Amino acid sequence: MAEYTFFTNPMSRGQIVRWALHEVGADYETELVDWQAKPEGLTKANPLGKVPTLVHHDGDHIHVVTECAAICHYLAEMNPDAGLLPGAHEKADYFRLLFFAAGPVEQATTSRAMGWSVDDPQKQGMLGFGSYERAMEAFETLIADSDYVCGERFTMADVYVGSQVDWGLNFGSIPKRQVFEDYAERLRERPAYREAKAIDMQLIAEAQG
Amino acid sequence: MAEYTFFTNPMSRGQIVRWALHEVGADYETELVDWQAKPEGLTKANPLGKVPTLVHHDGDHIHVVTECAAICHYLAEMNPDAGLLPGAHEKADYFRLLFFAAGPVEQATTSRAMGWSVDDPQKQGMLGFGSYERAMEAFETLIADSDYVCGERFTMADVYVGSQVDWGLNFGSIPKRQVFEDYAERLRERPAYREAKAIDMQLIAEAQG
Repeated sequence: MAEYTFFTNPMSRGQIVRWALHEVGADYETELVDWQAKPEGLTKANPLGKVPTLVHHDGDHIHVVTECAAICHYLAEMNPDAGLLPGAHEKADYFRLLFFAAGPVEQATTSRAMGWSVDDPQKQGMLGFGSYERAMEAFETLIADSDYVCGERFTMADVYVGSQVDWGLNFGSIPKRQVFEDYAERLRERPAYREAKAIDMQLIAEAQG
Repeated sequence: MAEYTFFTNPMSRGQIVRWALHEVGADYETELVDWQAKPEGLTKANPLGKVPTLVHHDGDHIHVVTECAAICHYLAEMNPDAGLLPGAHEKADYFRLLFFAAGPVEQATTSRAMGWSVDDPQKQGMLGFGSYERAMEAFETLIADSDYVCGERFTMADVYVGSQVDWGLNFGSIPKRQVFEDYAERLRERPAYREAKAIDMQLIAEAQG
Protein backbone atom coordinates (compact mmCIF):
# COMPACT_ATOMS: atom_id res chain seq x y z
CA MET A 1 0.00 0.00 0.00
CA ALA A 2 1.23 3.48 -0.82
CA GLU A 3 2.03 5.80 2.11
CA TYR A 4 -0.70 8.26 1.08
CA THR A 5 -4.16 7.80 -0.41
CA PHE A 6 -5.13 10.91 -2.33
CA PHE A 7 -8.85 11.38 -2.97
CA THR A 8 -9.30 13.88 -5.73
CA ASN A 9 -11.06 14.93 -8.86
CA PRO A 10 -8.78 16.29 -11.59
CA MET A 11 -11.05 19.31 -12.04
CA SER A 12 -10.82 20.35 -8.39
CA ARG A 13 -8.36 22.02 -6.09
CA GLY A 14 -6.93 18.56 -5.76
CA GLN A 15 -4.53 19.89 -8.42
CA ILE A 16 -2.87 21.96 -5.69
CA VAL A 17 -2.38 18.92 -3.51
CA ARG A 18 -1.00 16.82 -6.37
CA TRP A 19 1.61 19.49 -6.95
CA ALA A 20 2.50 19.37 -3.23
CA LEU A 21 2.73 15.56 -3.35
CA HIS A 22 5.19 15.80 -6.24
CA GLU A 23 7.24 18.54 -4.54
CA VAL A 24 7.96 16.19 -1.63
CA GLY A 25 8.26 13.09 -3.81
CA ALA A 26 5.49 11.34 -1.90
CA ASP A 27 4.58 7.71 -2.43
CA TYR A 28 0.85 8.06 -3.13
CA GLU A 29 -2.05 6.40 -4.88
CA THR A 30 -4.85 8.38 -6.44
CA GLU A 31 -8.51 7.57 -5.78
CA LEU A 32 -10.61 9.41 -8.31
CA VAL A 33 -13.83 10.74 -6.91
CA ASP A 34 -16.88 11.15 -9.06
CA TRP A 35 -19.20 13.91 -7.80
CA GLN A 36 -22.18 11.54 -7.94
CA ALA A 37 -20.80 8.31 -6.47
CA LYS A 38 -18.33 8.88 -3.66
CA PRO A 39 -16.10 5.92 -2.77
CA GLU A 40 -16.64 4.37 0.63
CA GLY A 41 -13.02 5.01 1.62
CA LEU A 42 -13.62 8.74 1.28
CA THR A 43 -16.85 8.97 3.23
CA LYS A 44 -15.21 6.86 5.93
CA ALA A 45 -12.20 9.20 6.11
CA ASN A 46 -14.12 12.43 5.72
CA PRO A 47 -17.83 12.63 6.61
CA LEU A 48 -18.09 15.69 4.36
CA GLY A 49 -16.90 13.67 1.38
CA LYS A 50 -14.88 16.67 0.20
CA VAL A 51 -11.93 16.48 -2.19
CA PRO A 52 -9.07 16.84 -1.91
CA THR A 53 -8.76 14.61 1.13
CA LEU A 54 -5.45 13.01 2.04
CA VAL A 55 -5.15 9.83 4.08
CA HIS A 56 -1.73 9.17 5.55
CA HIS A 57 -0.98 5.54 6.36
CA ASP A 58 1.69 6.19 8.95
CA GLY A 59 2.68 2.81 10.35
CA ASP A 60 -0.07 1.84 12.81
CA HIS A 61 -1.64 5.28 12.54
CA ILE A 62 -4.06 6.58 9.98
CA HIS A 63 -4.23 10.35 9.67
CA VAL A 64 -6.75 12.29 7.63
CA VAL A 65 -6.06 15.80 6.42
CA THR A 66 -8.44 18.13 4.59
CA GLU A 67 -8.23 21.82 3.59
CA CYS A 68 -5.72 22.43 0.78
CA ALA A 69 -3.40 24.68 2.75
CA ALA A 70 -3.33 22.24 5.67
CA ILE A 71 -2.51 19.33 3.37
CA CYS A 72 0.35 21.24 1.71
CA HIS A 73 1.88 22.20 5.04
CA TYR A 74 1.35 18.69 6.45
CA LEU A 75 3.27 17.18 3.54
CA ALA A 76 6.15 19.59 4.16
CA GLU A 77 6.16 18.59 7.85
CA MET A 78 6.14 14.87 7.06
CA ASN A 79 8.96 15.25 4.53
CA PRO A 80 11.47 17.62 6.09
CA ASP A 81 14.21 16.41 3.74
CA ALA A 82 12.38 18.04 0.85
CA GLY A 83 13.50 21.33 2.41
CA LEU A 84 10.17 23.08 1.98
CA LEU A 85 9.54 23.98 5.62
CA PRO A 86 10.37 27.52 6.70
CA GLY A 87 13.55 28.29 8.62
CA ALA A 88 13.39 30.26 11.89
CA HIS A 89 13.40 33.65 10.17
CA GLU A 90 11.03 32.57 7.42
CA LYS A 91 8.20 31.40 9.68
CA ALA A 92 6.46 34.76 10.03
CA ASP A 93 6.08 35.23 6.27
CA TYR A 94 5.32 31.57 5.67
CA PHE A 95 2.41 31.27 8.09
CA ARG A 96 1.16 34.81 7.53
CA LEU A 97 0.81 34.29 3.79
CA LEU A 98 -0.55 30.76 4.09
CA PHE A 99 -3.39 31.97 6.30
CA PHE A 100 -3.84 35.20 4.34
CA ALA A 101 -4.35 33.22 1.13
CA ALA A 102 -6.62 30.63 2.79
CA GLY A 103 -8.65 33.29 4.61
CA PRO A 104 -9.06 36.82 3.21
CA VAL A 105 -8.01 36.00 -0.38
CA GLU A 106 -10.27 32.95 -0.59
CA GLN A 107 -13.15 34.85 0.99
CA ALA A 108 -12.70 37.90 -1.24
CA THR A 109 -12.58 35.92 -4.47
CA THR A 110 -15.49 33.59 -3.68
CA SER A 111 -17.65 36.46 -2.43
CA ARG A 112 -16.98 38.29 -5.67
CA ALA A 113 -17.80 35.16 -7.71
CA MET A 114 -21.14 34.98 -5.87
CA GLY A 115 -21.83 38.65 -6.48
CA TRP A 116 -21.67 39.44 -2.76
CA SER A 117 -20.30 42.77 -1.56
CA VAL A 118 -21.00 45.47 0.97
CA ASP A 119 -20.32 49.22 0.86
CA ASP A 120 -20.84 50.14 4.51
CA PRO A 121 -17.30 50.65 5.98
CA GLN A 122 -18.38 49.28 9.36
CA LYS A 123 -19.64 46.07 7.78
CA GLN A 124 -16.46 45.91 5.67
CA GLY A 125 -14.54 45.91 8.96
CA MET A 126 -16.51 42.85 10.09
CA LEU A 127 -15.59 41.03 6.90
CA GLY A 128 -11.92 40.56 7.60
CA PHE A 129 -11.03 41.06 3.95
CA GLY A 130 -12.75 44.47 3.78
CA SER A 131 -13.50 44.50 0.11
CA TYR A 132 -12.26 42.58 -2.93
CA GLU A 133 -10.21 45.58 -4.06
CA ARG A 134 -8.54 46.08 -0.68
CA ALA A 135 -7.81 42.38 -0.33
CA MET A 136 -6.16 42.23 -3.77
CA GLU A 137 -4.18 45.39 -3.05
CA ALA A 138 -2.89 43.86 0.18
CA PHE A 139 -2.13 40.54 -1.49
CA GLU A 140 -0.09 42.29 -4.17
CA THR A 141 1.83 44.31 -1.55
CA LEU A 142 2.64 41.17 0.43
CA ILE A 143 4.17 39.27 -2.47
CA ALA A 144 5.64 42.19 -4.47
CA ASP A 145 9.00 42.44 -2.73
CA SER A 146 10.54 39.07 -3.43
CA ASP A 147 10.43 36.09 -5.74
CA TYR A 148 8.74 33.79 -3.23
CA VAL A 149 6.72 34.01 -0.02
CA CYS A 150 9.83 33.63 2.14
CA GLY A 151 12.17 35.76 0.03
CA GLU A 152 14.42 34.16 -2.57
CA ARG A 153 13.74 30.59 -1.52
CA PHE A 154 10.80 28.46 -2.67
CA THR A 155 8.88 26.85 0.23
CA MET A 156 5.66 24.89 0.54
CA ALA A 157 3.80 28.16 1.19
CA ASP A 158 4.37 28.96 -2.50
CA VAL A 159 2.51 25.83 -3.58
CA TYR A 160 -0.66 27.02 -1.88
CA VAL A 161 -0.29 30.80 -2.19
CA GLY A 162 1.00 30.46 -5.74
CA SER A 163 -1.88 28.18 -6.70
CA GLN A 164 -4.34 30.81 -5.49
CA VAL A 165 -2.61 33.25 -7.87
CA ASP A 166 -2.23 30.77 -10.74
CA TRP A 167 -5.88 29.61 -10.57
CA GLY A 168 -7.08 33.13 -9.95
CA LEU A 169 -5.39 34.40 -13.10
CA ASN A 170 -6.78 31.49 -15.15
CA PHE A 171 -10.32 31.91 -13.86
CA GLY A 172 -10.36 35.71 -13.71
CA SER A 173 -10.78 35.86 -9.93
CA ILE A 174 -7.39 37.57 -9.42
CA PRO A 175 -6.63 40.76 -11.37
CA LYS A 176 -4.05 40.46 -14.17
CA ARG A 177 -1.32 42.56 -12.57
CA GLN A 178 2.36 42.18 -13.34
CA VAL A 179 3.31 41.08 -9.81
CA PHE A 180 0.80 38.23 -9.95
CA GLU A 181 1.71 37.23 -13.51
CA ASP A 182 5.44 37.14 -12.76
CA TYR A 183 4.96 35.11 -9.61
CA ALA A 184 2.74 32.56 -11.37
CA GLU A 185 5.25 32.34 -14.24
CA ARG A 186 8.08 31.46 -11.83
CA LEU A 187 6.01 28.71 -10.24
CA ARG A 188 4.93 27.16 -13.55
CA GLU A 189 8.63 26.41 -14.17
CA ARG A 190 8.82 23.99 -11.23
CA PRO A 191 9.32 20.41 -12.42
CA ALA A 192 6.88 19.13 -9.78
CA TYR A 193 4.25 21.62 -10.97
CA ARG A 194 4.64 20.37 -14.53
CA GLU A 195 4.53 16.70 -13.58
CA ALA A 196 1.43 17.15 -11.45
CA LYS A 197 -0.43 19.27 -14.01
CA ALA A 198 0.37 16.79 -16.78
CA ILE A 199 -1.30 14.01 -14.78
CA ASP A 200 -4.43 16.03 -14.06
CA MET A 201 -4.69 17.31 -17.64
CA GLN A 202 -4.43 13.73 -18.89
CA LEU A 203 -7.15 12.59 -16.47
CA ILE A 204 -9.40 15.44 -17.60
CA ALA A 205 -8.82 14.54 -21.26
CA GLU A 206 -9.66 10.87 -20.56
CA ALA A 207 -12.82 11.79 -18.68
CA GLN A 208 -13.96 13.90 -21.62
CA GLY A 209 -13.41 10.91 -23.88
CA MET B 1 12.19 46.64 24.65
CA ALA B 2 9.81 43.74 24.99
CA GLU B 3 10.28 40.79 22.62
CA TYR B 4 6.87 41.32 21.02
CA THR B 5 4.88 44.44 20.17
CA PHE B 6 1.20 43.60 20.11
CA PHE B 7 -1.01 46.02 18.19
CA THR B 8 -4.58 45.48 19.25
CA ASN B 9 -7.91 46.91 20.19
CA PRO B 10 -9.56 45.24 23.20
CA MET B 11 -12.82 44.93 21.28
CA SER B 12 -11.25 43.00 18.40
CA ARG B 13 -9.99 39.52 17.70
CA GLY B 14 -6.84 40.76 19.35
CA GLN B 15 -8.38 38.99 22.36
CA ILE B 16 -7.48 35.68 20.73
CA VAL B 17 -3.87 36.72 20.30
CA ARG B 18 -3.59 38.02 23.86
CA TRP B 19 -4.71 34.63 25.08
CA ALA B 20 -2.04 32.99 22.89
CA LEU B 21 0.61 35.40 24.24
CA HIS B 22 -0.29 34.40 27.80
CA GLU B 23 -0.32 30.69 26.95
CA VAL B 24 3.35 30.88 25.94
CA GLY B 25 4.29 33.38 28.66
CA ALA B 26 5.51 35.88 26.06
CA ASP B 27 7.31 39.09 26.96
CA TYR B 28 5.12 41.63 25.14
CA GLU B 29 4.02 45.24 25.18
CA THR B 30 0.57 46.29 24.06
CA GLU B 31 0.02 49.14 21.60
CA LEU B 32 -3.62 50.11 21.67
CA VAL B 33 -5.00 51.01 18.30
CA ASP B 34 -7.82 53.46 17.93
CA TRP B 35 -9.91 52.83 14.79
CA GLN B 36 -9.58 56.49 13.76
CA ALA B 37 -5.92 57.28 14.50
CA LYS B 38 -3.62 54.39 13.72
CA PRO B 39 -0.15 54.58 15.27
CA GLU B 40 2.76 54.97 12.87
CA GLY B 41 4.39 51.78 14.15
CA LEU B 42 1.39 49.80 12.94
CA THR B 43 1.08 51.30 9.47
CA LYS B 44 4.82 50.77 9.07
CA ALA B 45 4.55 47.10 10.08
CA ASN B 46 1.32 46.38 8.26
CA PRO B 47 0.20 48.52 5.31
CA LEU B 48 -3.36 47.33 5.93
CA GLY B 49 -3.28 48.73 9.45
CA LYS B 50 -5.22 45.69 10.67
CA VAL B 51 -5.32 44.52 14.27
CA PRO B 52 -4.22 42.23 15.69
CA THR B 53 -0.72 42.62 14.27
CA LEU B 54 2.26 41.14 16.05
CA VAL B 55 5.80 42.45 15.64
CA HIS B 56 8.53 40.10 16.81
CA HIS B 57 11.82 41.78 17.73
CA ASP B 58 14.01 38.73 17.22
CA GLY B 59 17.58 39.90 17.75
CA ASP B 60 18.61 41.70 14.56
CA HIS B 61 15.44 40.58 12.81
CA ILE B 62 12.02 42.13 12.87
CA HIS B 63 9.18 39.81 11.89
CA VAL B 64 5.60 40.87 11.32
CA VAL B 65 2.74 38.41 11.62
CA THR B 66 -0.92 39.03 10.87
CA GLU B 67 -3.99 36.73 10.66
CA CYS B 68 -5.06 35.43 14.07
CA ALA B 69 -4.48 31.76 13.35
CA ALA B 70 -1.01 32.48 11.93
CA ILE B 71 -0.06 34.53 14.99
CA CYS B 72 -1.21 31.79 17.38
CA HIS B 73 0.76 29.12 15.56
CA TYR B 74 3.79 31.39 15.20
CA LEU B 75 3.87 31.94 18.97
CA ALA B 76 3.74 28.18 19.53
CA GLU B 77 6.67 27.76 17.10
CA MET B 78 8.76 30.47 18.77
CA ASN B 79 8.10 29.02 22.24
CA PRO B 80 8.44 25.26 21.89
CA ASP B 81 8.97 24.89 25.64
CA ALA B 82 5.37 25.90 26.20
CA GLY B 83 4.51 22.48 24.75
CA LEU B 84 1.69 23.73 22.54
CA LEU B 85 3.01 22.50 19.21
CA PRO B 86 1.56 19.25 17.86
CA GLY B 87 3.49 16.00 18.14
CA ALA B 88 4.06 13.84 15.04
CA HIS B 89 0.70 12.06 15.32
CA GLU B 90 -1.20 15.23 16.24
CA LYS B 91 -0.18 17.29 13.21
CA ALA B 92 -2.99 16.14 10.91
CA ASP B 93 -5.74 17.20 13.33
CA TYR B 94 -3.89 20.33 14.40
CA PHE B 95 -3.42 21.82 10.93
CA ARG B 96 -6.68 20.48 9.55
CA LEU B 97 -8.72 22.18 12.27
CA LEU B 98 -6.68 25.37 12.28
CA PHE B 99 -7.34 25.85 8.56
CA PHE B 100 -10.91 24.59 8.80
CA ALA B 101 -11.70 27.20 11.46
CA ALA B 102 -9.85 30.00 9.63
CA GLY B 103 -11.41 29.08 6.28
CA PRO B 104 -14.84 27.42 6.03
CA VAL B 105 -16.01 28.31 9.57
CA GLU B 106 -14.96 31.94 9.26
CA GLN B 107 -16.50 32.21 5.81
CA ALA B 108 -19.75 30.51 6.82
CA THR B 109 -20.29 32.70 9.88
CA THR B 110 -19.42 36.02 8.24
CA SER B 111 -21.51 35.21 5.15
CA ARG B 112 -24.46 34.49 7.42
CA ALA B 113 -23.86 37.74 9.36
CA MET B 114 -23.99 39.59 6.04
CA GLY B 115 -27.15 37.81 4.99
CA TRP B 116 -25.39 36.08 2.10
CA SER B 117 -26.42 32.58 1.08
CA VAL B 118 -27.03 30.51 -2.00
CA ASP B 119 -29.39 27.58 -2.61
CA ASP B 120 -28.02 26.24 -5.91
CA PRO B 121 -26.05 23.04 -5.03
CA GLN B 122 -23.51 23.71 -7.79
CA LYS B 123 -22.77 27.17 -6.41
CA GLN B 124 -22.63 25.72 -2.89
CA GLY B 125 -19.90 23.43 -4.16
CA MET B 126 -17.90 26.47 -5.29
CA LEU B 127 -18.18 28.01 -1.85
CA GLY B 128 -15.96 25.58 -0.01
CA PHE B 129 -18.14 25.74 3.09
CA GLY B 130 -21.26 24.68 1.17
CA SER B 131 -23.81 26.26 3.42
CA TYR B 132 -23.81 27.59 6.97
CA GLU B 133 -25.72 24.52 8.18
CA ARG B 134 -23.34 22.05 6.53
CA ALA B 135 -20.27 23.90 7.80
CA MET B 136 -21.57 23.88 11.39
CA GLU B 137 -22.50 20.21 11.11
CA ALA B 138 -18.98 19.38 9.94
CA PHE B 139 -17.40 21.57 12.61
CA GLU B 140 -19.38 19.79 15.31
CA THR B 141 -18.41 16.37 13.92
CA LEU B 142 -14.73 17.31 13.85
CA ILE B 143 -14.56 18.38 17.50
CA ALA B 144 -17.14 16.01 19.01
CA ASP B 145 -14.92 13.02 19.67
CA SER B 146 -12.39 14.41 22.11
CA ASP B 147 -11.78 17.16 24.62
CA TYR B 148 -9.39 19.10 22.42
CA VAL B 149 -8.41 19.42 18.76
CA CYS B 150 -5.59 16.90 19.14
CA GLY B 151 -7.36 14.49 21.48
CA GLU B 152 -6.94 14.77 25.23
CA ARG B 153 -4.12 17.29 25.09
CA PHE B 154 -4.55 21.09 24.80
CA THR B 155 -2.47 22.62 21.99
CA MET B 156 -2.25 26.04 20.37
CA ALA B 157 -4.86 24.96 17.83
CA ASP B 158 -7.40 25.11 20.65
CA VAL B 159 -6.68 28.79 21.26
CA TYR B 160 -7.76 29.67 17.76
CA VAL B 161 -10.38 26.99 17.09
CA GLY B 162 -11.76 27.39 20.60
CA SER B 163 -11.96 31.16 20.25
CA GLN B 164 -14.03 30.75 17.10
CA VAL B 165 -16.42 28.64 19.20
CA ASP B 166 -16.31 30.87 22.30
CA TRP B 167 -16.90 34.10 20.33
CA GLY B 168 -19.44 32.41 18.10
CA LEU B 169 -21.52 31.31 21.08
CA ASN B 170 -21.32 34.79 22.61
CA PHE B 171 -22.29 36.57 19.41
CA GLY B 172 -24.80 34.03 18.15
CA SER B 173 -22.82 33.11 15.05
CA ILE B 174 -22.30 29.49 16.20
CA PRO B 175 -25.36 27.41 17.18
CA LYS B 176 -25.76 26.67 20.89
CA ARG B 177 -25.14 22.92 20.72
CA GLN B 178 -23.85 20.87 23.64
CA VAL B 179 -20.57 19.92 21.90
CA PHE B 180 -19.71 23.58 21.32
CA GLU B 181 -20.82 24.67 24.82
CA ASP B 182 -18.78 21.95 26.53
CA TYR B 183 -15.67 22.70 24.51
CA ALA B 184 -15.89 26.44 25.23
CA GLU B 185 -16.45 25.71 28.93
CA ARG B 186 -13.24 23.64 29.11
CA LEU B 187 -11.25 26.42 27.48
CA ARG B 188 -12.60 29.16 29.75
CA GLU B 189 -10.96 27.31 32.65
CA ARG B 190 -7.46 27.91 31.28
CA PRO B 191 -5.51 30.32 33.54
CA ALA B 192 -4.03 32.07 30.49
CA TYR B 193 -7.52 32.57 29.04
CA ARG B 194 -8.65 34.17 32.28
CA GLU B 195 -5.60 36.42 32.60
CA ALA B 196 -5.90 37.62 29.01
CA LYS B 197 -9.67 38.22 29.16
CA ALA B 198 -9.30 40.15 32.43
CA ILE B 199 -6.87 42.56 30.76
CA ASP B 200 -9.09 43.15 27.75
CA MET B 201 -12.24 43.52 29.86
CA GLN B 202 -10.42 46.09 32.00
CA LEU B 203 -9.30 47.99 28.89
CA ILE B 204 -12.84 47.99 27.53
CA ALA B 205 -14.20 49.25 30.86
CA GLU B 206 -11.61 52.06 30.92
CA ALA B 207 -12.41 53.08 27.35
CA GLN B 208 -16.08 53.30 28.20
CA GLY B 209 -15.19 55.56 31.15
